[in-house]
Amino acid sequence: MEFQSRIKTIEWVDTYSKMVDQTVIPYEYKFVNITGGQEMFDAIRNMIVRGAPAIGIAGAHGVILFAQELAKETSDRAEFIKKLIEKAGYMKTSRPTAVNLMWAVDKQIELIKSSNADINGIIEELKQNAIKLENEDIEINKKIGDYGAEVVPKGATILTHCNAGALATVGYGTALGVVRSAYAKDNTVQVFADETRPRQQGARITTFELAMDGIPVTLITDGMCSYFMKKRMIDMVVVGADRIAANGDTANKIGTYTVAIAAKYHNIPFYVAAPLSTIDISIKSGAEIPIEERSHDEVTHINGKPVCPLKGVNIINPGFDVTPHELITGIITEKGILRPDFNKSIREAYE
Amino acid sequence: MEFQSRIKTIEWVDTYSKMVDQTVIPYEYKFVNITGGQEMFDAIRNMIVRGAPAIGIAGAHGVILFAQELAKETSDRAEFIKKLIEKAGYMKTSRPTAVNLMWAVDKQIELIKSSNADINGIIEELKQNAIKLENEDIEINKKIGDYGAEVVPKGATILTHCNAGALATVGYGTALGVVRSAYAKDNTVQVFADETRPRQQGARITTFELAMDGIPVTLITDGMCSYFMKKRMIDMVVVGADRIAANGDTANKIGTYTVAIAAKYHNIPFYVAAPLSTIDISIKSGAEIPIEERSHDEVTHINGKPVCPLKGVNIINPGFDVTPHELITGIITEKGILRPDFNKSIREAYE
Repeated sequence: MEFQSRIKTIEWVDTYSKMVDQTVIPYEYKFVNITGGQEMFDAIRNMIVRGAPAIGIAGAHGVILFAQELAKETSDRAEFIKKLIEKAGYMKTSRPTAVNLMWAVDKQIELIKSSNADINGIIEELKQNAIKLENEDIEINKKIGDYGAEVVPKGATILTHCNAGALATVGYGTALGVVRSAYAKDNTVQVFADETRPRQQGARITTFELAMDGIPVTLITDGMCSYFMKKRMIDMVVVGADRIAANGDTANKIGTYTVAIAAKYHNIPFYVAAPLSTIDISIKSGAEIPIEERSHDEVTHINGKPVCPLKGVNIINPGFDVTPHELITGIITEKGILRPDFNKSIREAYE
Repeated sequence: MEFQSRIKTIEWVDTYSKMVDQTVIPYEYKFVNITGGQEMFDAIRNMIVRGAPAIGIAGAHGVILFAQELAKETSDRAEFIKKLIEKAGYMKTSRPTAVNLMWAVDKQIELIKSSNADINGIIEELKQNAIKLENEDIEINKKIGDYGAEVVPKGATILTHCNAGALATVGYGTALGVVRSAYAKDNTVQVFADETRPRQQGARITTFELAMDGIPVTLITDGMCSYFMKKRMIDMVVVGADRIAANGDTANKIGTYTVAIAAKYHNIPFYVAAPLSTIDISIKSGAEIPIEERSHDEVTHINGKPVCPLKGVNIINPGFDVTPHELITGIITEKGILRPDFNKSIREAYE
């Protein structure tokens, strides 16, 4: 039985990108239409859309939006292509850590460079390419979910950090894709969701989408994971990824590394669920992954109100951390579960 | 050079208890006067006063407040004593985990039982006893601070969780007493403060009191500790304690255990700073320490606003966790730093 999620996070509609506005969840569930390239850049930067795979699709949409704008400025095909590739490069800088953004925008750039069509034809091809990426994302997630479900014990409680769910992808989820596939087979499976400060994607988004799909979820604060692991109330951890190095080192939302250490200490399996597009085989280890330093407001304010003194207190706000490969039990991909030695299993998956 | 803190958290004044209202920090710094026994019970329960040593003093004050009330109800000394001991027992139930509460109230009960004075005389003796406990608390904290400062490396960055500071005690702090004493010797020492969800005592209170005393402090969210440990930006961890078992297992604010595991993984020293009154030699291990389950609102709301969906989401909110003795480098007390084997070193400290 296949799990039917009620969520479609992002899709291309005719001339614009339609997406769930994730900044207002869980207070509202509403869609916004992004109609311009710079508007898409800002939507990614400001996390109206977030989650590595969803950001990838958003980036691909952004290239179409820039193309539509450039088509109004010039009818010179060569100039159009030159400027569009520049704009696509700019789109890739909207967030630095998620490699899916670079991957999806590069797919559009390849298309632009190889197309023989005129300007309108290129735009049409970019749209078809984006829709193909959307459909592939859902198909890939379902495969990830099905492979992952095979290692979920009967009646398991799965801890996850941040949101690698339907709302981080086009519509099924990576880590929460595993949850959905497991739940479809066994409705005694349940989820513990880390709050995931500073931006609380676990509290706001993971709980929201699981509740929406009727999957049991318990919200805990980030420091609590070890307490429940010690009580054997958590059977496994499954998280998403923003970028995976060739050796398996995995960049994901800040706090993931702490959970991985706690899981190791309690001998609890720790899985990363991600499409192969999240793997950056050009980098040897996590030491090469750039870590985004985000606004201090994310730490000092919640819902617009300060949670600490605003004078005399320093803030550092790394958006991600790197979990070293030795803490990872397996990487669940659309080609199956990769196991250590990851250098070998990742290389083989790419062949 | 002795460090002079600007903070006096709680003190007995003539006929009432004067305390800093910790529920409004960091937005306001104001004092409240607690004039009745039940009012004190509620002040402890609702965390107007918090921190194990400060709760102990508050409990001792609460016994005086009940005594003042009973003296108006009866002039029968035997009845007064019987009812006061009942009320003192009730006061001990205001919070279940902090053993200092039981310890300080028991000090008052011992006095009541052994006194030869009349009703007014007993009340006067209870006041003198409370003031003695207050002064001892500061003296003990300064000794803890001075012993602890000896193991703080030059220019160290000290990570702490929750607030074991001046605002958790009468006025100097246990974990932050170590910080104050170390900073007095070496003003290149600095603090990283965990936010400490759900109640954010780190963000609200630790940052506030360190900023007030001019000690450099950086606020981080709870999941970040491992990230900074890996970067060697944290040299040691010092936390307080709510109850320590005879084998060194230490109950402290939820999340402490996670920090201890991360410190172990990175070979970073992890110290507990607490007066001997926090050690409950009647219990063999942490498994016997009762863990307070607190209100779900603490997880679901911040500053009165929800941070998650309020339907379809389960909550569990343990207020404390237990860090097993094998993760603890040393317990810093007023009699020096106790080292493993803690069963032995704790027993010796008590002799």
